[in-house]
Amino acid sequence: MKREPDVITENGNQGLISDVHQLVASYPRVPLTVDCVVFGFDDNELKVLLIESDISIFEGKWTLLGDFVRDNENLDDAAHRIFRERTGMSDIYLEQVRAFSNPGRHPGGRVITIAYCSLVNIHHHTLQKLDNSLHWHGVHDISDMAFDHYDIVQTCYVWLQKRIQEHPLGLNLLPDKFSLRELQNLYEAILGIHLDRRNFRKKFFSMDFLIDTNEYEDDVPHRPGKLYKFDFAKFEKQKRKWTGIDFA
Amino acid sequence: MKREPDVITENGNQGLISDVHQLVASYPRVPLTVDCVVFGFDDNELKVLLIESDISIFEGKWTLLGDFVRDNENLDDAAHRIFRERTGMSDIYLEQVRAFSNPGRHPGGRVITIAYCSLVNIHHHTLQKLDNSLHWHGVHDISDMAFDHYDIVQTCYVWLQKRIQEHPLGLNLLPDKFSLRELQNLYEAILGIHLDRRNFRKKFFSMDFLIDTNEYEDDVPHRPGKLYKFDFAKFEKQKRKWTGIDFA
Repeated sequence: MKREPDVITENGNQGLISDVHQLVASYPRVPLTVDCVVFGFDDNELKVLLIESDISIFEGKWTLLGDFVRDNENLDDAAHRIFRERTGMSDIYLEQVRAFSNPGRHPGGRVITIAYCSLVNIHHHTLQKLDNSLHWHGVHDISDMAFDHYDIVQTCYVWLQKRIQEHPLGLNLLPDKFSLRELQNLYEAILGIHLDRRNFRKKFFSMDFLIDTNEYEDDVPHRPGKLYKFDFAKFEKQKRKWTGIDFA
Repeated sequence: MKREPDVITENGNQGLISDVHQLVASYPRVPLTVDCVVFGFDDNELKVLLIESDISIFEGKWTLLGDFVRDNENLDDAAHRIFRERTGMSDIYLEQVRAFSNPGRHPGGRVITIAYCSLVNIHHHTLQKLDNSLHWHGVHDISDMAFDHYDIVQTCYVWLQKRIQEHPLGLNLLPDKFSLRELQNLYEAILGIHLDRRNFRKKFFSMDFLIDTNEYEDDVPHRPGKLYKFDFAKFEKQKRKWTGIDFA
């Protein structure tokens, strides 16, 4: 099979396609949506923001925050628009994860969706509940969802677990000044595992992005821990050169 | 803006949408393509497989192996089909990297493309050059390409550098039995950096996937190195639980 229909190559010079508009017009077209998987961190638990489905055959089921992509809208812009329209929040970290394209994923016909992932601090952001059916759910409390949204959430959860180990997006969930205990709690909640305290601290100090504020926690029921800041400026400047081979 | 046009909600029960086909029919449709970024490893150099553009305004420029996505074809299937049609190769590791959606990326109008990435051993696979204009290019020798394909190649190159440190896909490029020197050459060529010999070996042994064959290289101009196999079965069984926080 060749890329171009014969009718178009006839116009070409030396078999080249000259009418690119006709070429694109000959391609099949697909309805395209963006779905946002918004993770939040609250009381040491990872949560995900869902909305009740507005489709009758999915009545009572939860779905992701999604919408179709507009003409001439790029996918990043679509994700930010959808997020803003649904939650009232803007200026949020959103990253493309992957496309989901199984032909049977939407009961209304072929729809391909691009999943975007975000991680927000539930307390930092005022969630203007533009829609009353918007709710935070514990990541492990979800089972049945509309469409293939359960699979999308699971894929994005695995993506997030990996991503927070490569990129300090998780640090946005902590206060500006935080203790090492708070930092470890965050990582343990998202990774869903217990981390060795000594190794965790050693690892973080070896990356050399923690700024010692010389201040201590107060009003805590345990021995006050030292408070640190994360050096985002230094992280941005260094933009890592990957060298840590690790697939064990 | 609401997700559904008003005309559709009228049919619904309690505002729910009952006609899902009409809903999907109301979405804008976009021509969708898949582009394959096929990296190969040859003579300690990373290469990428390109084809001459068949579009007259891009005459003489190189493009990726791509085609439109067919009706009812999922994206993985489309990527494998395109790869097979263009190269004659099948049974290849192909992974979705991301969508590229800038409205101006195709001169013929709006086309969104999903990039897939592959890594093949140029010598293992018989590249049936179904098209004479198919060529391997040194990754660092490419500059100008048709469409946004230069950006796509760069994005996939960064993706590959990261991916080979998380997943043994690179090992497929080595002979069944390989020396640690060959292994390090492979990683250095793809990462584009020099790795410390001791640390590299220590890291690989600590992952515990290397099987000592008790055999040695022969016909080499240096001291024969021991030959190893990679334990793919063990890797598959363990399917890593990520715990290596690392964003330095």
